[in-house]
Formats: sequence, C-alpha cells, structure tokens
Amino acid sequence: MQFSPLIEELIQALRCLPGVGPKNAQRMALHLLERNRAGGNRLASVLQRSMEQVGHCSSCRTLTEQEICRICSSGRRNNTVLCVVETPADMLALEQSGVYDGRYFVLLGHLSPLAGIGPDDLGFNELVEKLQNEPVEEVILATNPTLEGETTAQYLVELLSSLPLKITHLAQGIPLGGELEYLDGGTLSRAFSGRQGFASVKETNG
Amino acid sequence: MQFSPLIEELIQALRCLPGVGPKNAQRMALHLLERNRAGGNRLASVLQRSMEQVGHCSSCRTLTEQEICRICSSGRRNNTVLCVVETPADMLALEQSGVYDGRYFVLLGHLSPLAGIGPDDLGFNELVEKLQNEPVEEVILATNPTLEGETTAQYLVELLSSLPLKITHLAQGIPLGGELEYLDGGTLSRAFSGRQGFASVKETNG
Repeated sequence: MQFSPLIEELIQALRCLPGVGPKNAQRMALHLLERNRAGGNRLASVLQRSMEQVGHCSSCRTLTEQEICRICSSGRRNNTVLCVVETPADMLALEQSGVYDGRYFVLLGHLSPLAGIGPDDLGFNELVEKLQNEPVEEVILATNPTLEGETTAQYLVELLSSLPLKITHLAQGIPLGGELEYLDGGTLSRAFSGRQGFASVKETNG
Repeated sequence: MQFSPLIEELIQALRCLPGVGPKNAQRMALHLLERNRAGGNRLASVLQRSMEQVGHCSSCRTLTEQEICRICSSGRRNNTVLCVVETPADMLALEQSGVYDGRYFVLLGHLSPLAGIGPDDLGFNELVEKLQNEPVEEVILATNPTLEGETTAQYLVELLSSLPLKITHLAQGIPLGGELEYLDGGTLSRAFSGRQGFASVKETNG
C-alpha cells in the first residue's frame, strides 16, 4: 500500500533535497498538501524560476541571476586583493564575518580526479586571465583545510608562481572557543608548528 | 551581505517545508543550484501539479488526485468495518501493518477549539451519512492517544451512540519492545488498568 501515484511522485521528488530521507519526504509532502498549499505553490514557482535563471557571475563565478554579482559590480571593494574560495557558501561566510573587503573568485568545487573534476572545471584559466588583467597584488587561497582543498591550493600556488603576486592562505590553528581536550591531533599539530611569539602577533596585525 | 535576490527568495520559499531552518534551506538551495538542476526542475513541476490536482477522496476524505481513492474503489475490502483516523499518514501506517482489511474515514485533523477546528471541518456529517447508507457494523476509532485525539473520539462516541453500531477503539498499553523502566506514567497506568487474564487474550483473538 502506498499513497496515490501523484503523491508518491511528490515524495520521490522531494528526496532530491540533501538530507531528506523517505519518512521526512513523506512528512513534507503531506504537510504541504494538508496545510500549506500556498507555500507549496510559491516554492514550485520560485524553484522553477531559480533553476532557469540562476547562472554564474561572469567575473567571479559565484551563483547569481545577474550578469555580474553585487560584489564584483560594487565600486567600494579593494581591487588589489582577491580571495579564492570553493563555494558561494564559503564566500557568504567570509562576507558575514566582515573582515574582508576585497574581491572573490569562486572555484565551485575542488580538484577531485575520482569525481572527474579537473582544472578546467574550476575556472583556473579564467582566474589566471583575471589576475593578468586586473590590479591584484595579493591572492588569498581560502580553500577548505581538507585533503582536496589543500591539494587544490597547492596546485594553484604552482600555477600562479610565475605571476608577480603575493600568495597567502588563511591561518590554521585552534578555533575560538575550542577546547584543547576535544581538538583532533591534526589541528593541534598545525597549531603547534605554527605557534607565534606574542610580539609577532602584533607585527602581523600591524 | 546575502546571496542574490532570486537565491534568497528560493531559500525563503524552502522554509515552508517542515523542519527546515535557515541554514538547512540555504544548503538545499545551493545543492540544487550547484549540483542537481534536473532534480530541482522535476521537483518544481511535480510540486506544481500536486498542489493543483491533489484533492480528497469523495468517499473517505483521504488525500488523492483521484475522485475515489484506491481503497474505497477496491472490491476486496470488508464493508462492515470502518476505521476512523486523523490523517492520511495514520491510514498508511495501518495499511502497512497489514492487520486491517476494512474501510477508512479520514478526519484530516482533530477537534481543536483553539485552532478553530470544529465538527464541520472534520466531516462528521459526512461520516454519519456514510454510516447510515453503508452496511457498516463496527466503527473503530483510531484517533491518536493524545488529549485532542481522545476528545475527538469521545465526541464521536456520543455522536454515533444513536446508531445501531459497535464502537471500539485501539487497545492502549505497553508498545512491543518497550521497556517498563523508560515508559511514562500515563502509559503504565493505562496498561495496568487495562490488564488482561491470559485466558481473555485467547477469547479476544477468537
């Protein structure tokens, strides 16, 4: 026994959402049908428009329905720094922290030979071209501190080494509020090998 | 800083799904946009059709896009028993247990004066009419064992008392695999007051 064909189809379709299993999809379908048809209709319409209209910023590759995204078209950003991130969500996280006012370049992934993702898929050519044509002085490689993220950063370091640029990466160490007792060995070992004198912290900030 | 307007609209629209908060909605939107546009398009189309076409079975009120649902139109069900449940999901759960081969009536909710849900919203008139016109001999009230569910059942017992029917409810007690140590006092107290002799279990089954 199952629900009627269309309801079963809806439950199946909802499973394309990440983290949604069969029980959860059933709950979502029945909730919309029983209690929120207006919400369901709005979701259907926005979803259809989004899938059709959202593309990539022609300058930084982030997801947007505009030709050039808000950050790339802003006149108030620092043109001499470019931060390379893996995903639009990473870009948003950095923006929300408020520490950065330069430009971005979004790879939309990381190097992954097993998944067939190579330099061409991540826009490395566009990145090099951008760096040659724009007044960028520093590139911050803010890929994730995972195996794939670090491999991608290492590849970029070699690719960009011939350009007259300063290449940096984000500091690795103990996160704020982290407790030594519960941190993994990898993080502790990075924090140890990257330890700083109290004076040098000042210098870095200055 | 936020994503572009259309992406923000999509994130908002996804929050109409139950159990989906802001972070989760963002993850879903980016997943569909970055990795599964086909799934997103299919979901949009099925969602739109479902919201438009799914209505209620004209006989038992369950959700279906058909005029009469599969169970009501089946010739193999026992016409003399009618099981009253709160939701289509409850009906599915009973069907999947495989213990019941009668007909259903779906209230689509429970009495709730605070939420403005009264007898008219739950189809009580249709239920009485159905019982008068069909050869039903027993009505099983399978509302949930919650305050609202039991109030609804009690109301139905009074409403149907004038009809020549046997009215029953599901047995309450310790669930299979439940451990006494962890059961709530209410369940234990029901299980105690409803205790059965080993002989009477046989009688009930016979």
